[in-house]
Amino acid sequence: MTSTLVLLRHGESEWNAKNLFTGWVDVQLTDKGRGEAVRGGEQLVEAGILPTVVHTSLQRRAINTAALALDAADRHWIPVRRSWRLNERHYGALQGKDKKQTLDQYGEEQFMLWRRSFDVPPPALADDDQYSQVGDPRYADLGDEMPRTECLKDVIARLVPYWESGIVPDLRAGHTVLVAAHGNSLRAIVKHLDGISDEDIAGLNIPTGMPLVYELDDETLQPVTKGGRYLDPEAAAAAAAAVANQGR
Amino acid sequence: MTSTLVLLRHGESEWNAKNLFTGWVDVQLTDKGRGEAVRGGEQLVEAGILPTVVHTSLQRRAINTAALALDAADRHWIPVRRSWRLNERHYGALQGKDKKQTLDQYGEEQFMLWRRSFDVPPPALADDDQYSQVGDPRYADLGDEMPRTECLKDVIARLVPYWESGIVPDLRAGHTVLVAAHGNSLRAIVKHLDGISDEDIAGLNIPTGMPLVYELDDETLQPVTKGGRYLDPEAAAAAAAAVANQGR
Repeated sequence: MTSTLVLLRHGESEWNAKNLFTGWVDVQLTDKGRGEAVRGGEQLVEAGILPTVVHTSLQRRAINTAALALDAADRHWIPVRRSWRLNERHYGALQGKDKKQTLDQYGEEQFMLWRRSFDVPPPALADDDQYSQVGDPRYADLGDEMPRTECLKDVIARLVPYWESGIVPDLRAGHTVLVAAHGNSLRAIVKHLDGISDEDIAGLNIPTGMPLVYELDDETLQPVTKGGRYLDPEAAAAAAAAVANQGR
Repeated sequence: MTSTLVLLRHGESEWNAKNLFTGWVDVQLTDKGRGEAVRGGEQLVEAGILPTVVHTSLQRRAINTAALALDAADRHWIPVRRSWRLNERHYGALQGKDKKQTLDQYGEEQFMLWRRSFDVPPPALADDDQYSQVGDPRYADLGDEMPRTECLKDVIARLVPYWESGIVPDLRAGHTVLVAAHGNSLRAIVKHLDGISDEDIAGLNIPTGMPLVYELDDETLQPVTKGGRYLDPEAAAAAAAAVANQGR
């Protein structure tokens, strides 16, 4: 027997469209992003995959993607759980910066180090920066865990406790679990599930708005098929390539 | 000390706009209804009332109203709880019927009896009716509690247990509670809170998309001011009068 996990990256956001580093800045979906979310929900219906519980980050682009996809799938009424641990990677001082300008200013090597290295975070964001989340009531309980910048390794460190305490219990209870989150929090889950090395994870890109479905062994919660499957594999491959080329 | 409870009736739905009895039929908001929901959220911001937890029915017009209002209020990230016990009154065999045609066919007395009597439900909806919710997965666990028709007394009977077990604990924990629901499930809460008689509740109408705010005594959870307050009292009075005249 298997449990079903569906990973869904939020649709295009206003800052995806502007090619800015976003991180913990809580930007809205674009109309295109809303359409991607609805299409993601329609793909779930076509595949007969009906989530029975949804987990989201505390960021509106993931929250609204989940709401639109689930409404389109007639599953808007399922239980909702949210955690900051599913948030996008905190992009530190890069938050609000133009990706192309950052590439031009710092060069290819530094740019890719910040974007894709496993354990090198960007410089920390100052607490008085306009794009800081310090003082945001939704993070008031975080205390010392409140990040000012993160590398992917940091994301994994804060995400895995929620995987274990929040998502695994739902999978073990027989739920079909939808996780609506972000490029890097979903890469962290995929790395954890598929056992991808610290080096190889740099090459993994997750497209927006396309459900990635894992069947997990009920005993081990290991993927039956490594990498899972996209419900529309050709579109997903094309979109992942576009993600990899951001900033170019 | 007091706790704050905000009641919010969903914005205009597609069947409000068509003047059809809706009940448990899960219709979508109209664009006007979406705008009402956003405006409701903006009113909360203007009043400085920031919900810390939201309760909704299992119906998309309430779920989406909550999502839009909370997004507009920058509170989209708060915990969500849902229950069928907050659903609209089940309108029985009237579900899907035109209100004006029903008035013409059955006459003023019978029409108002079905709409506003406390303890006379409409005829039951047949399980094979196109507007039946029997077989809907969201209600699979209801068993004998699955209604085929309801009067307001029936709504109170199934709602009060959730008030006690779901909403009161959040109020006692110090939450500012938003309840996004329906004309009749909110009338049931107001009747319970304000101690309105079975006769007088017929005259109470709740407008769509307008936050109704109660301050409740921390000890007794009784309203400090009976009837609560609308954040825009003049608009609420005009809208409530329009609800009272539906079908005319």
